[in-house]
Amino acid sequence: MEISLADIEKAKERIKFLASHTPLYESQFLSKRCSCEVDLKLECYQPIRVFKIRGAANKMLSLAENHELRNVVAFSAGNHGLAVVYVAYKLGVQAAIVVPNTAVQTKVNAISEYPNSKIIRGGSTVEELKTVAEKIANDENSLLVHPFADPAVICGQGTIGLEIVEDQPKVDTILVPIGGGGLISGISAAAKAKKESCKVIGICAEGAPAAYKSFKENRIVSQPPKTIADGMGASTTDPFNLELMKRYVDDMVLVSDLEIKHAMKVLIEDLHVLVEPAGAAAVAALLSGSYKPSSRDEVVVPVLSGGNVNPSLVKEILLEPS
Amino acid sequence: MEISLADIEKAKERIKFLASHTPLYESQFLSKRCSCEVDLKLECYQPIRVFKIRGAANKMLSLAENHELRNVVAFSAGNHGLAVVYVAYKLGVQAAIVVPNTAVQTKVNAISEYPNSKIIRGGSTVEELKTVAEKIANDENSLLVHPFADPAVICGQGTIGLEIVEDQPKVDTILVPIGGGGLISGISAAAKAKKESCKVIGICAEGAPAAYKSFKENRIVSQPPKTIADGMGASTTDPFNLELMKRYVDDMVLVSDLEIKHAMKVLIEDLHVLVEPAGAAAVAALLSGSYKPSSRDEVVVPVLSGGNVNPSLVKEILLEPS
Repeated sequence: MEISLADIEKAKERIKFLASHTPLYESQFLSKRCSCEVDLKLECYQPIRVFKIRGAANKMLSLAENHELRNVVAFSAGNHGLAVVYVAYKLGVQAAIVVPNTAVQTKVNAISEYPNSKIIRGGSTVEELKTVAEKIANDENSLLVHPFADPAVICGQGTIGLEIVEDQPKVDTILVPIGGGGLISGISAAAKAKKESCKVIGICAEGAPAAYKSFKENRIVSQPPKTIADGMGASTTDPFNLELMKRYVDDMVLVSDLEIKHAMKVLIEDLHVLVEPAGAAAVAALLSGSYKPSSRDEVVVPVLSGGNVNPSLVKEILLEPS
Repeated sequence: MEISLADIEKAKERIKFLASHTPLYESQFLSKRCSCEVDLKLECYQPIRVFKIRGAANKMLSLAENHELRNVVAFSAGNHGLAVVYVAYKLGVQAAIVVPNTAVQTKVNAISEYPNSKIIRGGSTVEELKTVAEKIANDENSLLVHPFADPAVICGQGTIGLEIVEDQPKVDTILVPIGGGGLISGISAAAKAKKESCKVIGICAEGAPAAYKSFKENRIVSQPPKTIADGMGASTTDPFNLELMKRYVDDMVLVSDLEIKHAMKVLIEDLHVLVEPAGAAAVAALLSGSYKPSSRDEVVVPVLSGGNVNPSLVKEILLEPS
C-alpha cells in the first residue's frame, strides 16, 4: 500500500475546516540551548490540543464523501478517542470509544463530555482493545477507525509534514514522537515527497520501545509499555506502519521519562507551552542530547504532538526544583 | 478616524504569513457549566501566545509596503513588546522596548532573547513609558508602534472579529478582555460590520477599571491599575479607542482577581489550556455570572487573549484547592 503525496494534499484540503494549520514557531530560547535553530511545530495548539484530529477528520470525511459514514468505534488511550468523538460530533454521528483500564482519567473525562460518546473499558493491550472494538463494530454495524494502521489516518497526520516544509523550506530535520507509528508514517512520507533531503527522526520512550525495536530489527516486536508518556505507550506497531517507517524514517532514538519531564518543565516555564509527556518527547531528545544536530545552522523541527496533560503531573513537574 | 471593514480585511491578507488563524473551539465542559454554548477563541495559540502579534504585524507590514519601515520602538507591559520584537525580527529591523519597572520578568526575558531587541526600563504609568519611547523614537529616528491607539494596530486585532464571525456565523456575543482598548476596538468594529446583531461585551479587571469608567462616564478616566492581570493593567484608554468603544461595544462588566484565578485553574486543569490572567478574564465573566447569557441557545465567544503567564502564578493556582 502506498501513501501518495496527492492523497496527503487532498487530506489537507479536506480537513481544513476542522483542524488548524498550526504555528511553526522559532524558539530563541531553545535555539540558544540546543546548538541549532529550533522551530517548534505546535500541534498541541489544535482545537482538541492534539494532532489526532487530522487523521480522524481525514478518515471520517473521506467516508462521508463516499456516503459511507455511519456511527464509529475506536480504541485509544485517550487522544485518538477524543479526536474520533470530536469529529463524529461535528459530523453528527455517534462514537463508541474503547479505552484501556489504565487510561488517564482527564482524557476519559474529556471524551465523555460529548453527548454523542460512549466509553467502554476494554483491557490493557492494544490487541485486547482492538478485539473489543472489532466486536462492537460487528455487532452494531459501526465503522472502526484505527488509530494508526489506516492509509486515510496516516494521510491526515501527514498534513503536518506538508505544513512544516511549506512554512519552513529550509527544514533539515524533523523530530517526531512515536506511539503506534501513525504520526511519523504520515509526516515522513509527506516530508520526503516535498523535500528529499529532509531527515526524519523518530523519538520513542525508553519504557515503550516496541516501534524502536521493530525499526532496528526490521520485524514486529511487541513489549508492554511502561512510561509516563501515555501518548507513546503502544505495545506494538503494525506491519503497514513498519514498512512505511523503514522506507521514510532515517533513524530512531530513545528518551527517558526523566528527560521528558525536564522538557515539559522547560516548555511550560520558559516557553509557556503546555504539553503532555508525548508532546515534550521531541524537545527532550534535543535537550538531552539523544539527538545531536550536526551544526548551529541545522534547522530542526520538533513536533509537539499534544497538550492533554493530567493536572497532577503538571503540579508535580512545576514543584520540582529547576 | 474610521476603522473600515475593507482595512480589516486587508490586514487579514497581509498578516497571514506571520499570525495564525486561531481555533474557535466549542467547549462541552464550559457549555454545560455556563448555561450557553461556549466557543473559545484561542488567541493564546498564536506563535508568540498572544493576539498582539496581529496588530504589530499589520502596522509594520503596512509600513514595509510603503517602504517606510525602519527600526521600531514600543512601550509595553510585555506582550505588545514581545509582538513588536518578534515581528521586527522576522522583518529584519531592530526593536527597542520600554517596559515598566513592574513588568513580569518572564515577559521581559522572552523579549530579551531576541538578538534584535533592546530593553529599557522606563517608569510605571503609560504616560511615563510613552514619554521615554517618544524620546527614543525622536533621538534615534525610529518608529513608535503604539500598543492600541493606532488604526493599523486596531485593524490587526480586528482580524480576530472576522475569524470569529466566519468560523461561527451563529455567534451571538463576543466577550473581550480590555487593557488599553485596542483589542476590543478592532474586534467590535469587525464583528458589527460582518454581523450587526452580534453583541460585544468588554471585560475589565476590578483593579484596572479605567476603560470601564471611561466607557460608562463617556469621558477619559485614568486610574493606576492594581490587578494580577498585567495584560489588562492599562491606567487609561485613548480618546480614539473610547470613541470606537462607544460606537461598537454594547456593554462592559468587571471581574475580580479571584474570579480570574478560578477561571485560569479551570482552563488549565479541565481544558488543558494555559492562559495568563487576561486570557482567562472572559471565561471568568461567564463562570462568575458577571456576564449572564440570555438563554441556553446563546452562542458566546470568550476571547482567550494570551498565554504568557508567570510559572510561579501557575504553581500557586494549581496548588489551591478546587
